[in-house]
Amino acid sequence: IELMFYTSHQQSASKEEGYDDMDWTSDVETYPPWLRFHLGISRWELYNRKDPNLAQLTHYLATQRILGAVQKTGGTQLKLLISFPNHGQALLKPMKQSRDTETDVNLFYFSDFERHNAEISAFHLDRLLGFNRIPPVVGRLMNVTADIREKTTDHKVSRTFFTSPAGNVCFYGQCEYYCSTEHPVCGRPHLLEVSLAAILPDLSLAPRRSWRSPWRRSYSRTKLAQWEKNPNYCDSVKQTPPYSQGTRLVDLIDMAVLDFLMSNMDRHHYETFEKFGNETFLLHLDNGRAFGRHSQDEPSILAPLQQCCRIRRSTLLRLRLLALPDFRLSDVMRESLAQDPLADAAPLLSEAHLSALDRRLAAVLQVVHTCQEKHTDVIHDDLDRYDQDSLTDRNTKQ
Amino acid sequence: IELMFYTSHQQSASKEEGYDDMDWTSDVETYPPWLRFHLGISRWELYNRKDPNLAQLTHYLATQRILGAVQKTGGTQLKLLISFPNHGQALLKPMKQSRDTETDVNLFYFSDFERHNAEISAFHLDRLLGFNRIPPVVGRLMNVTADIREKTTDHKVSRTFFTSPAGNVCFYGQCEYYCSTEHPVCGRPHLLEVSLAAILPDLSLAPRRSWRSPWRRSYSRTKLAQWEKNPNYCDSVKQTPPYSQGTRLVDLIDMAVLDFLMSNMDRHHYETFEKFGNETFLLHLDNGRAFGRHSQDEPSILAPLQQCCRIRRSTLLRLRLLALPDFRLSDVMRESLAQDPLADAAPLLSEAHLSALDRRLAAVLQVVHTCQEKHTDVIHDDLDRYDQDSLTDRNTKQ
Repeated sequence: IELMFYTSHQQSASKEEGYDDMDWTSDVETYPPWLRFHLGISRWELYNRKDPNLAQLTHYLATQRILGAVQKTGGTQLKLLISFPNHGQALLKPMKQSRDTETDVNLFYFSDFERHNAEISAFHLDRLLGFNRIPPVVGRLMNVTADIREKTTDHKVSRTFFTSPAGNVCFYGQCEYYCSTEHPVCGRPHLLEVSLAAILPDLSLAPRRSWRSPWRRSYSRTKLAQWEKNPNYCDSVKQTPPYSQGTRLVDLIDMAVLDFLMSNMDRHHYETFEKFGNETFLLHLDNGRAFGRHSQDEPSILAPLQQCCRIRRSTLLRLRLLALPDFRLSDVMRESLAQDPLADAAPLLSEAHLSALDRRLAAVLQVVHTCQEKHTDVIHDDLDRYDQDSLTDRNTKQ
Repeated sequence: IELMFYTSHQQSASKEEGYDDMDWTSDVETYPPWLRFHLGISRWELYNRKDPNLAQLTHYLATQRILGAVQKTGGTQLKLLISFPNHGQALLKPMKQSRDTETDVNLFYFSDFERHNAEISAFHLDRLLGFNRIPPVVGRLMNVTADIREKTTDHKVSRTFFTSPAGNVCFYGQCEYYCSTEHPVCGRPHLLEVSLAAILPDLSLAPRRSWRSPWRRSYSRTKLAQWEKNPNYCDSVKQTPPYSQGTRLVDLIDMAVLDFLMSNMDRHHYETFEKFGNETFLLHLDNGRAFGRHSQDEPSILAPLQQCCRIRRSTLLRLRLLALPDFRLSDVMRESLAQDPLADAAPLLSEAHLSALDRRLAAVLQVVHTCQEKHTDVIHDDLDRYDQDSLTDRNTKQ
């Protein structure tokens, strides 16, 4: 890690009310966990799974005193941007329904509620798959009155607070869907489960590019997308930059595997860090609509794998490992999720969701197997991707 | 029953497409059930419980071929006006949630979903209490495609039809609350449970007056109504016409007893037929928000009884009867509801709701008992109210 070009920027903001004085020196040990997370972002992953800072970061998000809360714009459902005294921030998604409520069969993927436990579980799953492409997320039991109502300066949020007939403190904010008295977010009477996700470096410091997924759904009740109508759709994708070279296509297929396992149909876009150009990993942001249904799978999410018949070798090896009795995906997920603070109240994922993971993993391996019977070049070997580029290294080539 | 002043009106409309030719003579036997219902409305009740036409009317509503369906305006949630070939009409409310889903504890009475089984059950309860002030309601399993989509001429309805991810035919119409893709009304895949209520005579033939209930709730998340703040509220009501004379006050208390038993907090207005002036019964229309919760009672609904300490003798006698082991309210309700066509699928009210009725009935009698310990004039004896006025008798005094 070289010169940090943005600590100065952060420090200029340090005089704001309620924030800690910063006594960060050039010694990384003095940096808060969120900053070490930012500095650890590399060309190929968001964090190193062995970095001790990972546990420090989730502990930090789960325990730090809350300084402020404002509504985060963008997206269609309510989410808050939480700030901490040492300039860290987190993206909050509230619990809106009990963890095991299955998505109504008549709801479309684009109008399903977001789930706080889906955000948490997606982070764990992505890490166990060896991707490390989701910003760390942790569960937290918050006090809506002390931590949000009394802290927020955002009138869009504060004016929607009310006490429900059951005596619970509720609010709903301002957004496109489900921001109304009929769909309140409520404490019991004050305590509310939320997910808190680490925020990425500010866009002014680390600009990102948003890419429309070639396998994006139509977001229409009636229309089909191209890839749903054309079985040879991948042929044209393969010829189109940036999918025509490098690892972008297998990156996309990694993402499809993750999404199929957790049944997330809402992956319309993905992002990359501009600094790393086209040779970099894909960010798997916004997983609130995953884990909505355990009783059913959605094979169409695997279309990129099934239509392109290609998969990264390291991903395939990891999937095969997680299908072995000793390393069963459901077992490692159960164990991993048990580390989350909210697991004390109830498992983050029910057993039905955990066993759906095993069932879906077998389905992924079956698709790979079918591909291998038809093609010879299914497995993609990466070039040496573990070079030492980092987001905060000014000398990295674009 | 004297001269019918509105059959001529109805007959003039008989040439419209799809309607039956009318061969009604002056012989009542040739009239369809809906017309006999209209002709049977008297000054003191909507129907006579012994009239054989009652069963014919509900059978008619439950089985007649459907000619048309348009959205009914007014109110905040979706309802349809259904028309039948012989000029009868019905008010349709669809099933929107499973029968035993309890109202969310954080929802206000004014944003709760309406229930089709509440409309049906309210009619039965009102009849068993001897009031006969709710237009007959019956359940029906309808085909949303054949009976609504293919029949409606209402674009507000037809353009909202879609096929859900589960392959069910759904629609949502246009209204203030819950008319969106996120809250569709869905068949399985075509069949939908609905309630059908007999429509009252057209307002041009039998104008009605709407009265704001003195015990109306505030319809605000924060404000209290006068009656919630002032324990002597009834003193002023008693001095205000029309409550200062006749039976209006005990009529209102009858309505409060009905509403408390079924836990309906949404009685903001009530109606009367103009023709009968102030000496007439109160219509108990719009009961879709009753029976939302069985695990809890709402004592404030009884405020009119508790604050005025007055009750009609015939009502009290009926309530006492229904508290006896041999005539237990839950038992007679169970038996009565079993007659409804939808009872074949599942009981219209769960056992939990039925036993809540017994518990609440005991609470009503306890309030009366407390009143009797404090006052002497609790029981109100009606004057002879069973005169022969009817809605269609031109000679009735106003």
